[in-house]
Amino acid sequence: MKMDFSFKPAQISTERALALKAEIELFNAQYCATLDRGNIEDWPLFFVQDALYRVTSRENSDLNLPVGLVYAEGRDMMHDRAVAIARTQMYAPRYMLHLVTNVRVIDEAINGDIEAEANFMLMQTLVEGPSTVHLVGNYFDTFTRVDGKLLIKERQVIFDTAILANDLVFPV
Amino acid sequence: MKMDFSFKPAQISTERALALKAEIELFNAQYCATLDRGNIEDWPLFFVQDALYRVTSRENSDLNLPVGLVYAEGRDMMHDRAVAIARTQMYAPRYMLHLVTNVRVIDEAINGDIEAEANFMLMQTLVEGPSTVHLVGNYFDTFTRVDGKLLIKERQVIFDTAILANDLVFPV
Amino acid sequence: MKMDFSFKPAQISTERALALKAEIELFNAQYCATLDRGNIEDWPLFFVQDALYRVTSRENSDLNLPVGLVYAEGRDMMHDRAVAIARTQMYAPRYMLHLVTNVRVIDEAINGDIEAEANFMLMQTLVEGPSTVHLVGNYFDTFTRVDGKLLIKERQVIFDTAILANDLVFPV
Repeated sequence: MKMDFSFKPAQISTERALALKAEIELFNAQYCATLDRGNIEDWPLFFVQDALYRVTSRENSDLNLPVGLVYAEGRDMMHDRAVAIARTQMYAPRYMLHLVTNVRVIDEAINGDIEAEANFMLMQTLVEGPSTVHLVGNYFDTFTRVDGKLLIKERQVIFDTAILANDLVFPV
Repeated sequence: MKMDFSFKPAQISTERALALKAEIELFNAQYCATLDRGNIEDWPLFFVQDALYRVTSRENSDLNLPVGLVYAEGRDMMHDRAVAIARTQMYAPRYMLHLVTNVRVIDEAINGDIEAEANFMLMQTLVEGPSTVHLVGNYFDTFTRVDGKLLIKERQVIFDTAILANDLVFPV
Repeated sequence: MKMDFSFKPAQISTERALALKAEIELFNAQYCATLDRGNIEDWPLFFVQDALYRVTSRENSDLNLPVGLVYAEGRDMMHDRAVAIARTQMYAPRYMLHLVTNVRVIDEAINGDIEAEANFMLMQTLVEGPSTVHLVGNYFDTFTRVDGKLLIKERQVIFDTAILANDLVFPV
Protein backbone atom coordinates (compact mmCIF):
# COMPACT_ATOMS: atom_id res chain seq x y z
CA MET A 1 0.00 0.00 0.00
CA LYS A 2 1.27 3.40 -1.01
CA MET A 3 2.36 5.48 1.98
CA ASP A 4 4.51 8.14 0.39
CA PHE A 5 3.04 10.78 -1.89
CA SER A 6 6.10 13.02 -1.95
CA PHE A 7 6.91 14.60 -5.27
CA LYS A 8 9.10 12.48 -7.53
CA PRO A 9 10.22 13.65 -10.96
CA ALA A 10 8.69 11.45 -13.64
CA GLN A 11 10.96 8.69 -14.93
CA ILE A 12 8.93 8.37 -18.11
CA SER A 13 9.36 10.41 -21.28
CA THR A 14 7.42 13.65 -21.68
CA GLU A 15 5.66 12.16 -24.70
CA ARG A 16 4.46 9.16 -22.71
CA ALA A 17 3.45 11.34 -19.76
CA LEU A 18 1.31 13.52 -22.05
CA ALA A 19 -0.43 10.53 -23.65
CA LEU A 20 -1.25 9.09 -20.22
CA LYS A 21 -2.35 12.50 -18.92
CA ALA A 22 -4.98 12.82 -21.67
CA GLU A 23 -6.23 9.29 -21.04
CA ILE A 24 -6.53 9.93 -17.28
CA GLU A 25 -8.34 13.23 -17.88
CA LEU A 26 -10.95 11.42 -19.97
CA PHE A 27 -11.24 8.69 -17.33
CA ASN A 28 -11.77 11.26 -14.58
CA ALA A 29 -14.34 13.13 -16.67
CA GLN A 30 -16.38 9.93 -17.08
CA TYR A 31 -15.92 8.99 -13.41
CA CYS A 32 -17.18 12.41 -12.29
CA ALA A 33 -20.06 12.51 -14.79
CA THR A 34 -21.28 9.21 -13.39
CA LEU A 35 -21.27 10.61 -9.85
CA ASP A 36 -22.70 14.01 -10.81
CA ARG A 37 -25.61 12.35 -12.63
CA GLY A 38 -26.36 10.42 -9.45
CA ASN A 39 -25.49 7.02 -10.96
CA ILE A 40 -23.73 6.12 -7.75
CA GLU A 41 -24.28 2.39 -8.17
CA ASP A 42 -22.02 2.49 -11.26
CA TRP A 43 -19.25 4.13 -9.27
CA PRO A 44 -17.47 0.88 -8.21
CA LEU A 45 -17.11 -0.07 -11.90
CA PHE A 46 -14.30 2.48 -12.22
CA PHE A 47 -12.18 0.41 -9.80
CA VAL A 48 -10.54 -3.01 -9.98
CA GLN A 49 -12.07 -5.74 -7.82
CA ASP A 50 -9.72 -5.31 -4.84
CA ALA A 51 -9.14 -1.55 -5.15
CA LEU A 52 -8.56 0.79 -2.24
CA TYR A 53 -10.54 4.02 -1.90
CA ARG A 54 -9.90 6.40 0.96
CA VAL A 55 -10.93 9.96 1.80
CA THR A 56 -8.72 11.71 4.36
CA SER A 57 -8.33 15.30 5.52
CA ARG A 58 -5.07 16.96 4.58
CA GLU A 59 -4.42 17.62 8.23
CA ASN A 60 -4.59 13.91 9.12
CA SER A 61 -2.65 13.01 5.99
CA ASP A 62 0.14 15.46 6.89
CA LEU A 63 0.29 13.98 10.41
CA ASN A 64 0.43 10.51 8.85
CA LEU A 65 -2.68 9.55 10.83
CA PRO A 66 -4.42 6.51 9.40
CA VAL A 67 -7.84 7.96 10.22
CA GLY A 68 -9.90 8.31 7.10
CA LEU A 69 -13.36 9.83 6.74
CA VAL A 70 -14.21 7.14 4.23
CA TYR A 71 -12.44 3.84 3.72
CA ALA A 72 -13.43 1.13 1.29
CA GLU A 73 -11.39 -1.88 0.29
CA GLY A 74 -12.73 -3.74 -2.71
CA ARG A 75 -15.62 -3.18 -5.08
CA ASP A 76 -18.09 -4.96 -2.81
CA MET A 77 -17.46 -2.55 0.06
CA MET A 78 -17.72 0.36 -2.36
CA HIS A 79 -20.96 -1.02 -3.72
CA ASP A 80 -22.43 -1.33 -0.21
CA ARG A 81 -21.48 2.21 0.56
CA ALA A 82 -22.77 3.46 -2.80
CA VAL A 83 -26.12 1.75 -2.33
CA ALA A 84 -26.43 3.09 1.20
CA ILE A 85 -25.87 6.62 -0.07
CA ALA A 86 -28.16 6.22 -3.04
CA ARG A 87 -31.00 4.99 -0.82
CA THR A 88 -30.58 7.53 1.95
CA GLN A 89 -33.16 10.23 1.54
CA MET A 90 -32.62 11.99 4.83
CA TYR A 91 -30.83 14.94 3.36
CA ALA A 92 -32.15 17.73 1.16
CA PRO A 93 -31.87 17.11 -2.59
CA ARG A 94 -28.77 18.67 -4.07
CA TYR A 95 -26.70 18.72 -7.24
CA MET A 96 -23.00 17.92 -7.16
CA LEU A 97 -20.48 19.01 -9.79
CA HIS A 98 -16.83 17.89 -9.91
CA LEU A 99 -14.18 20.02 -11.57
CA VAL A 100 -10.92 18.12 -12.04
CA THR A 101 -7.79 19.96 -13.17
CA ASN A 102 -3.98 19.84 -12.99
CA VAL A 103 -3.58 16.14 -13.82
CA ARG A 104 0.05 15.13 -13.55
CA VAL A 105 1.53 11.75 -14.31
CA ILE A 106 4.21 10.82 -11.80
CA ASP A 107 5.42 7.47 -13.06
CA GLU A 108 4.57 4.32 -14.98
CA ALA A 109 5.77 1.02 -13.54
CA ILE A 110 7.08 -1.93 -15.56
CA ASN A 111 3.80 -3.77 -14.90
CA GLY A 112 1.86 -0.88 -16.47
CA ASP A 113 0.58 0.66 -13.23
CA ILE A 114 0.43 4.44 -13.43
CA GLU A 115 0.90 6.83 -10.54
CA ALA A 116 -0.89 10.12 -11.07
CA GLU A 117 -2.29 13.08 -9.21
CA ALA A 118 -4.95 15.71 -9.85
CA ASN A 119 -6.65 18.65 -8.17
CA PHE A 120 -10.40 18.72 -7.74
CA MET A 121 -13.15 21.04 -6.61
CA LEU A 122 -16.52 19.61 -5.69
CA MET A 123 -19.37 22.10 -5.95
CA GLN A 124 -22.68 21.58 -4.21
CA THR A 125 -25.97 23.24 -5.12
CA LEU A 126 -29.01 22.84 -2.92
CA VAL A 127 -32.16 23.02 -5.01
CA GLU A 128 -33.21 26.66 -5.44
CA GLY A 129 -29.94 27.75 -3.85
CA PRO A 130 -26.54 29.12 -4.77
CA SER A 131 -23.60 26.89 -5.71
CA THR A 132 -21.04 26.58 -2.96
CA VAL A 133 -17.63 24.97 -2.60
CA HIS A 134 -18.18 21.65 -0.86
CA LEU A 135 -14.64 20.27 -0.96
CA VAL A 136 -11.32 21.00 -2.63
CA GLY A 137 -8.29 18.75 -2.65
CA ASN A 138 -6.19 16.20 -4.47
CA TYR A 139 -6.52 12.76 -5.96
CA PHE A 140 -3.47 10.53 -5.41
CA ASP A 141 -4.08 7.62 -7.74
CA THR A 142 -2.69 4.37 -8.96
CA PHE A 143 -4.27 3.22 -12.21
CA THR A 144 -3.88 -0.16 -13.80
CA ARG A 145 -4.88 -1.42 -17.22
CA VAL A 146 -7.45 -4.17 -17.71
CA ASP A 147 -8.22 -5.26 -21.30
CA GLY A 148 -6.53 -2.07 -22.47
CA LYS A 149 -8.71 0.21 -20.34
CA LEU A 150 -7.73 2.18 -17.26
CA LEU A 151 -9.18 1.25 -13.87
CA ILE A 152 -8.37 2.61 -10.43
CA LYS A 153 -6.26 0.38 -8.21
CA GLU A 154 -5.99 2.97 -5.47
CA ARG A 155 -7.54 6.42 -5.05
CA GLN A 156 -6.52 8.46 -2.03
CA VAL A 157 -8.65 11.60 -1.82
CA ILE A 158 -6.96 14.23 0.36
CA PHE A 159 -9.17 17.24 0.99
CA ASP A 160 -8.16 20.67 2.32
CA THR A 161 -11.61 21.78 3.45
CA ALA A 162 -12.72 21.25 7.04
CA ILE A 163 -16.01 19.35 7.06
CA LEU A 164 -18.26 17.98 9.73
CA ALA A 165 -17.17 14.50 10.80
CA ASN A 166 -20.71 13.15 10.60
CA ASP A 167 -21.45 14.70 7.24
CA LEU A 168 -22.66 12.10 4.80
CA VAL A 169 -19.82 11.91 2.29
CA PHE A 170 -20.68 11.29 -1.33
CA PRO A 171 -17.97 9.59 -3.36
CA VAL A 172 -15.46 12.18 -4.53
CA MET B 1 -32.98 18.41 -32.23
CA LYS B 2 -31.19 16.54 -29.47
CA MET B 3 -33.51 15.61 -26.61
CA ASP B 4 -31.57 12.90 -24.81
CA PHE B 5 -28.37 13.68 -22.94
CA SER B 6 -28.15 10.38 -21.10
CA PHE B 7 -24.70 8.87 -20.81
CA LYS B 8 -23.74 6.67 -23.73
CA PRO B 9 -20.40 4.86 -23.91
CA ALA B 10 -18.32 6.26 -26.77
CA GLN B 11 -18.40 4.22 -29.95
CA ILE B 12 -15.16 5.79 -31.14
CA SER B 13 -11.65 4.62 -30.30
CA THR B 14 -9.90 6.00 -27.24
CA GLU B 15 -7.22 7.47 -29.49
CA ARG B 16 -9.79 9.37 -31.56
CA ALA B 17 -11.66 10.51 -28.45
CA LEU B 18 -8.44 11.94 -26.98
CA ALA B 19 -7.56 13.83 -30.16
CA LEU B 20 -11.05 15.36 -30.30
CA LYS B 21 -10.99 16.14 -26.57
CA ALA B 22 -7.84 18.24 -26.95
CA GLU B 23 -9.28 20.07 -29.95
CA ILE B 24 -12.52 20.84 -28.09
CA GLU B 25 -10.60 22.05 -25.03
CA LEU B 26 -8.72 24.55 -27.19
CA PHE B 27 -11.98 25.62 -28.86
CA ASN B 28 -13.64 26.18 -25.48
CA ALA B 29 -10.62 28.11 -24.20
CA GLN B 30 -10.86 30.50 -27.16
CA TYR B 31 -14.66 30.74 -26.86
CA CYS B 32 -14.40 31.66 -23.18
CA ALA B 33 -11.49 34.07 -23.65
CA THR B 34 -13.61 35.96 -26.19
CA LEU B 35 -16.46 36.28 -23.71
CA ASP B 36 -14.24 37.05 -20.71
CA ARG B 37 -12.51 39.84 -22.62
CA GLY B 38 -15.93 41.34 -23.32
CA ASN B 39 -15.75 40.76 -27.08
CA ILE B 40 -19.36 39.67 -27.01
CA GLU B 41 -20.01 40.66 -30.60
CA ASP B 42 -17.54 37.98 -31.72
CA TRP B 43 -19.40 35.32 -29.77
CA PRO B 44 -21.74 34.20 -32.63
CA LEU B 45 -18.67 33.44 -34.77
CA PHE B 46 -18.10 30.28 -32.73
CA PHE B 47 -21.39 28.86 -34.06
CA VAL B 48 -22.61 27.72 -37.46
CA GLN B 49 -25.18 29.94 -39.17
CA ASP B 50 -28.27 28.03 -37.98
CA ALA B 51 -26.92 26.87 -34.62
CA LEU B 52 -29.01 26.39 -31.51
CA TYR B 53 -27.95 27.91 -28.19
CA ARG B 54 -29.98 27.38 -25.06
CA VAL B 55 -29.47 28.00 -21.36
CA THR B 56 -31.70 25.97 -19.04
CA SER B 57 -31.72 25.24 -15.32
CA ARG B 58 -30.96 21.67 -14.36
CA GLU B 59 -34.28 21.50 -12.59
CA ASN B 60 -36.22 22.32 -15.77
CA SER B 61 -33.96 20.09 -17.83
CA ASP B 62 -34.56 17.14 -15.47
CA LEU B 63 -38.32 17.73 -15.71
CA ASN B 64 -37.97 17.87 -19.50
CA LEU B 65 -39.53 21.34 -19.46
CA PRO B 66 -38.82 23.26 -22.63
CA VAL B 67 -38.49 26.51 -20.71
CA GLY B 68 -35.07 28.02 -21.23
CA LEU B 69 -33.64 31.13 -19.63
CA VAL B 70 -31.98 31.98 -22.92
CA TYR B 71 -32.86 30.64 -26.33
CA ALA B 72 -31.25 31.63 -29.60
CA GLU B 73 -31.65 29.93 -32.93
CA GLY B 74 -29.18 31.06 -35.54
CA ARG B 75 -26.26 33.43 -35.56
CA ASP B 76 -28.47 36.47 -36.26
CA MET B 77 -30.50 35.93 -33.10
CA MET B 78 -27.29 35.39 -31.14
CA HIS B 79 -25.86 38.57 -32.61
CA ASP B 80 -28.95 40.58 -31.61
CA ARG B 81 -28.74 39.25 -28.10
CA ALA B 82 -24.99 39.83 -27.93
CA VAL B 83 -25.32 43.42 -29.11
CA ALA B 84 -28.13 44.06 -26.63
CA ILE B 85 -25.96 42.82 -23.80
CA ALA B 86 -22.88 44.67 -24.97
CA ARG B 87 -24.79 47.97 -25.12
CA THR B 88 -26.63 47.59 -21.83
CA GLN B 89 -24.91 49.66 -19.19
CA MET B 90 -27.53 49.41 -16.50
CA TYR B 91 -25.58 47.00 -14.39
CA ALA B 92 -22.42 47.56 -12.38
CA PRO B 93 -19.19 46.81 -14.23
CA ARG B 94 -17.90 43.34 -13.56
CA TYR B 95 -15.35 40.82 -14.76
CA MET B 96 -16.36 37.32 -15.81
CA LEU B 97 -14.04 34.31 -15.88
CA HIS B 98 -14.97 30.89 -17.28
CA LEU B 99 -13.26 27.74 -16.05
CA VAL B 100 -14.02 24.75 -18.28
CA THR B 101 -13.00 21.25 -17.20
CA ASN B 102 -13.91 17.55 -17.57
CA VAL B 103 -14.37 17.58 -21.35
CA ARG B 104 -15.62 14.21 -22.54
CA VAL B 105 -16.25 13.12 -26.09
CA ILE B 106 -19.38 11.01 -26.36
CA ASP B 107 -19.46 10.12 -30.02
CA GLU B 108 -18.50 11.12 -33.55
CA ALA B 109 -21.07 10.64 -36.27
CA ILE B 110 -20.37 9.47 -39.81
CA ASN B 111 -20.94 13.03 -41.05
CA GLY B 112 -18.22 14.31 -38.70
CA ASP B 113 -20.52 15.82 -36.06
CA ILE B 114 -19.12 15.40 -32.56
CA GLU B 115 -21.17 15.02 -29.41
CA ALA B 116 -19.30 16.23 -26.34
CA GLU B 117 -19.85 17.45 -22.81
CA ALA B 118 -17.94 19.58 -20.33
CA ASN B 119 -18.26 21.07 -16.86
CA PHE B 120 -17.94 24.80 -16.34
CA MET B 121 -17.74 27.32 -13.56
CA LEU B 122 -18.42 30.97 -14.28
CA MET B 123 -16.86 33.36 -11.79
CA GLN B 124 -18.02 36.95 -11.41
CA THR B 125 -16.04 39.79 -9.88
CA LEU B 126 -17.64 43.14 -9.24
CA VAL B 127 -15.04 45.88 -9.50
CA GLU B 128 -13.32 46.32 -6.13
CA GLY B 129 -15.07 43.19 -4.87
CA PRO B 130 -14.42 39.55 -4.19
CA SER B 131 -14.79 36.84 -6.84
CA THR B 132 -17.94 34.79 -6.45
CA VAL B 133 -19.42 31.75 -8.13
CA HIS B 134 -21.99 33.01 -10.62
CA LEU B 135 -22.98 29.75 -12.26
CA VAL B 136 -21.82 26.14 -12.43
CA GLY B 137 -23.06 23.50 -14.80
CA ASN B 138 -22.58 21.52 -17.98
CA TYR B 139 -22.20 22.11 -21.67
CA PHE B 140 -23.97 19.54 -23.83
CA ASP B 141 -22.60 20.20 -27.30
CA THR B 142 -22.73 19.13 -30.88
CA PHE B 143 -19.76 20.34 -32.90
CA THR B 144 -19.40 20.23 -36.64
CA ARG B 145 -16.42 20.85 -38.86
CA VAL B 146 -16.34 23.71 -41.39
CA ASP B 147 -13.20 24.07 -43.52
CA GLY B 148 -11.43 21.79 -41.06
CA LYS B 149 -12.30 23.91 -38.04
CA LEU B 150 -14.73 23.12 -35.24
CA LEU B 151 -17.90 25.19 -34.87
CA ILE B 152 -20.84 24.71 -32.53
CA LYS B 153 -24.01 23.30 -34.06
CA GLU B 154 -25.80 23.08 -30.75
CA ARG B 155 -24.83 24.16 -27.24
CA GLN B 156 -27.18 23.33 -24.40
CA VAL B 157 -26.02 24.98 -21.20
CA ILE B 158 -27.54 23.29 -18.16
CA PHE B 159 -26.76 25.11 -14.93
CA ASP B 160 -27.13 23.83 -11.36
CA THR B 161 -27.19 27.21 -9.65
CA ALA B 162 -30.48 28.91 -8.87
CA ILE B 163 -30.45 32.40 -10.34
CA LEU B 164 -32.96 35.20 -10.54
CA ALA B 165 -35.21 34.79 -13.54
CA ASN B 166 -34.77 38.40 -14.58
CA ASP B 167 -31.02 38.40 -14.16
CA LEU B 168 -29.34 39.59 -17.29
CA VAL B 169 -27.63 36.48 -18.58
CA PHE B 170 -24.30 36.86 -20.31
CA PRO B 171 -23.44 34.16 -22.81
CA VAL B 172 -22.03 31.18 -20.96
CA MET C 1 9.06 43.23 -22.73
CA LYS C 2 5.56 42.20 -23.71
CA MET C 3 3.09 45.08 -23.46
CA ASP C 4 0.19 43.86 -25.55
CA PHE C 5 -1.95 40.92 -24.48
CA SER C 6 -4.68 41.44 -27.04
CA PHE C 7 -6.04 38.32 -28.67
CA LYS C 8 -4.22 37.19 -31.78
CA PRO C 9 -5.29 34.18 -33.81
CA ALA C 10 -2.64 31.46 -33.65
CA GLN C 11 -0.29 31.35 -36.61
CA ILE C 12 0.71 27.78 -35.84
CA SER C 13 -1.08 24.64 -36.96
CA THR C 14 -3.83 23.20 -34.79
CA GLU C 15 -1.78 20.03 -34.40
CA ARG C 16 1.21 21.96 -33.07
CA ALA C 17 -0.98 24.11 -30.81
CA LEU C 18 -2.51 20.97 -29.27
CA ALA C 19 0.88 19.35 -28.62
CA LEU C 20 2.14 22.52 -26.92
CA LYS C 21 -1.09 22.92 -24.96
CA ALA C 22 -0.68 19.47 -23.38
CA GLU C 23 2.95 20.17 -22.53
CA ILE C 24 2.08 23.51 -20.91
CA GLU C 25 -0.77 21.91 -18.93
CA LEU C 26 1.66 19.39 -17.46
CA PHE C 27 4.17 22.18 -16.73
CA ASN C 28 1.51 24.23 -14.94
CA ALA C 29 0.35 21.20 -12.96
CA GLN C 30 3.90 20.63 -11.67
CA TYR C 31 4.41 24.36 -11.03
CA CYS C 32 1.21 24.53 -8.97
CA ALA C 33 1.87 21.27 -7.10
CA THR C 34 5.22 22.68 -5.99
CA LEU C 35 3.53 25.80 -4.61
CA ASP C 36 0.56 23.98 -3.09
CA ARG C 37 2.89 21.58 -1.25
CA GLY C 38 4.63 24.60 0.23
CA ASN C 39 7.94 23.95 -1.60
CA ILE C 40 8.20 27.65 -2.29
CA GLU C 41 11.99 27.61 -2.49
CA ASP C 42 11.74 25.41 -5.59
CA TRP C 43 9.44 27.90 -7.28
CA PRO C 44 12.19 29.92 -9.07
CA LEU C 45 13.38 26.70 -10.77
CA PHE C 46 10.38 26.91 -13.11
CA PHE C 47 11.79 30.12 -14.60
CA VAL C 48 14.84 30.96 -16.70
CA GLN C 49 17.62 32.90 -14.96
CA ASP C 50 16.49 36.38 -16.09
CA ALA C 51 12.73 35.74 -16.18
CA LEU C 52 10.09 38.32 -15.41
CA TYR C 53 7.27 37.56 -12.96
CA ARG C 54 4.58 40.10 -12.25
CA VAL C 55 1.22 40.07 -10.48
CA THR C 56 -1.15 42.91 -11.44
CA SER C 57 -4.83 43.60 -10.88
CA ARG C 58 -6.99 43.51 -13.97
CA GLU C 59 -8.06 47.05 -13.26
CA ASN C 60 -4.48 48.35 -13.37
CA SER C 61 -3.69 46.15 -16.35
CA ASP C 62 -6.68 47.52 -18.29
CA LEU C 63 -5.57 51.09 -17.48
CA ASN C 64 -2.06 50.15 -18.64
CA LEU C 65 -0.74 51.19 -15.23
CA PRO C 66 2.70 49.74 -14.54
CA VAL C 67 1.85 49.22 -10.87
CA GLY C 68 2.17 45.57 -9.94
CA LEU C 69 1.37 43.98 -6.61
CA VAL C 70 4.39 41.74 -7.05
CA TYR C 71 7.32 42.28 -9.36
CA ALA C 72 10.37 40.07 -9.65
CA GLU C 73 13.03 40.20 -12.34
CA GLY C 74 15.34 37.24 -12.36
CA ARG C 75 15.54 34.02 -10.38
CA ASP C 76 17.55 35.64 -7.58
CA MET C 77 14.84 38.19 -6.85
CA MET C 78 12.22 35.42 -7.00
CA HIS C 79 14.31 33.35 -4.63
CA ASP C 80 14.60 36.22 -2.13
CA ARG C 81 10.89 36.73 -2.23
CA ALA C 82 10.19 33.01 -1.95
CA VAL C 83 12.47 32.64 1.05
CA ALA C 84 10.93 35.69 2.72
CA ILE C 85 7.46 34.18 2.32
CA ALA C 86 8.55 30.70 3.40
CA ARG C 87 10.11 32.09 6.60
CA THR C 88 7.29 34.44 7.51
CA GLN C 89 5.17 32.83 10.19
CA MET C 90 3.07 35.84 11.08
CA TYR C 91 -0.02 34.61 9.35
CA ALA C 92 -2.32 31.74 10.23
CA PRO C 93 -1.46 28.40 8.63
CA ARG C 94 -3.45 27.72 5.50
CA TYR C 95 -3.60 25.40 2.53
CA MET C 96 -3.53 26.73 -1.02
CA LEU C 97 -4.83 24.90 -4.09
CA HIS C 98 -4.42 26.08 -7.68
CA LEU C 99 -6.87 25.05 -10.38
CA VAL C 100 -5.57 25.89 -13.85
CA THR C 101 -7.86 25.57 -16.87
CA ASN C 102 -8.48 26.93 -20.38
CA VAL C 103 -4.87 26.79 -21.57
CA ARG C 104 -4.58 28.33 -25.02
CA VAL C 105 -1.49 28.56 -27.16
CA ILE C 106 -1.31 31.88 -28.96
CA ASP C 107 1.84 31.55 -31.02
CA GLU C 108 5.24 29.93 -31.32
CA ALA C 109 8.11 32.14 -32.48
CA ILE C 110 10.92 31.08 -34.79
CA ASN C 111 13.28 30.92 -31.82
CA GLY C 112 10.97 28.43 -30.07
CA ASP C 113 9.43 30.85 -27.57
CA ILE C 114 5.78 30.08 -26.94
CA GLU C 115 3.11 32.60 -26.06
CA ALA C 116 0.27 31.07 -24.07
CA GLU C 117 -2.52 31.97 -21.71
CA ALA C 118 -4.52 30.17 -19.04
CA ASN C 119 -7.23 30.79 -16.47
CA PHE C 120 -6.64 30.02 -12.82
CA MET C 121 -8.47 29.89 -9.53
CA LEU C 122 -6.52 29.90 -6.30
CA MET C 123 -8.41 28.42 -3.36
CA GLN C 124 -7.42 29.09 0.23
CA THR C 125 -8.33 26.98 3.23
CA LEU C 126 -7.58 28.16 6.74
CA VAL C 127 -6.98 25.19 9.02
CA GLU C 128 -10.32 23.95 10.37
CA GLY C 129 -12.13 26.30 8.02
CA PRO C 130 -14.01 26.29 4.75
CA SER C 131 -12.31 26.64 1.36
CA THR C 132 -12.73 30.08 -0.16
CA VAL C 133 -11.83 31.70 -3.45
CA HIS C 134 -8.63 33.65 -2.86
CA LEU C 135 -7.93 34.84 -6.39
CA VAL C 136 -9.12 34.21 -9.93
CA GLY C 137 -7.50 35.45 -13.09
CA ASN C 138 -5.24 34.77 -16.05
CA TYR C 139 -1.69 33.76 -16.75
CA PHE C 140 -0.14 35.53 -19.73
CA ASP C 141 3.03 33.58 -20.37
CA THR C 142 6.06 33.33 -22.56
CA PHE C 143 7.76 29.94 -22.35
CA THR C 144 11.14 29.04 -23.74
CA ARG C 145 12.85 25.70 -24.15
CA VAL C 146 16.08 24.83 -22.32
CA ASP C 147 17.58 21.38 -22.97
CA GLY C 148 14.25 20.34 -24.43
CA LYS C 149 12.24 21.35 -21.35
CA LEU C 150 9.87 24.28 -20.96
CA LEU C 151 10.76 27.12 -18.62
CA ILE C 152 8.98 30.41 -18.03
CA LYS C 153 10.57 33.49 -19.59
CA GLU C 154 7.75 35.76 -18.54
CA ARG C 155 4.63 35.20 -16.45
CA GLN C 156 2.18 38.05 -16.07
CA VAL C 157 -0.52 37.15 -13.56
CA ILE C 158 -3.59 39.35 -14.01
CA PHE C 159 -6.17 38.81 -11.29
CA ASP C 160 -9.83 39.89 -11.28
CA THR C 161 -10.36 39.71 -7.53
CA ALA C 162 -9.94 42.81 -5.37
CA ILE C 163 -7.47 42.07 -2.60
CA LEU C 164 -5.97 44.08 0.21
CA ALA C 165 -2.88 45.94 -0.97
CA ASN C 166 -0.86 44.82 2.03
CA ASP C 167 -1.94 41.19 1.83
CA LEU C 168 1.06 38.92 1.77
CA VAL C 169 0.94 37.49 -1.74
CA PHE C 170 2.02 33.91 -2.25
CA PRO C 171 3.35 33.09 -5.69
CA VAL C 172 0.44 32.41 -8.02
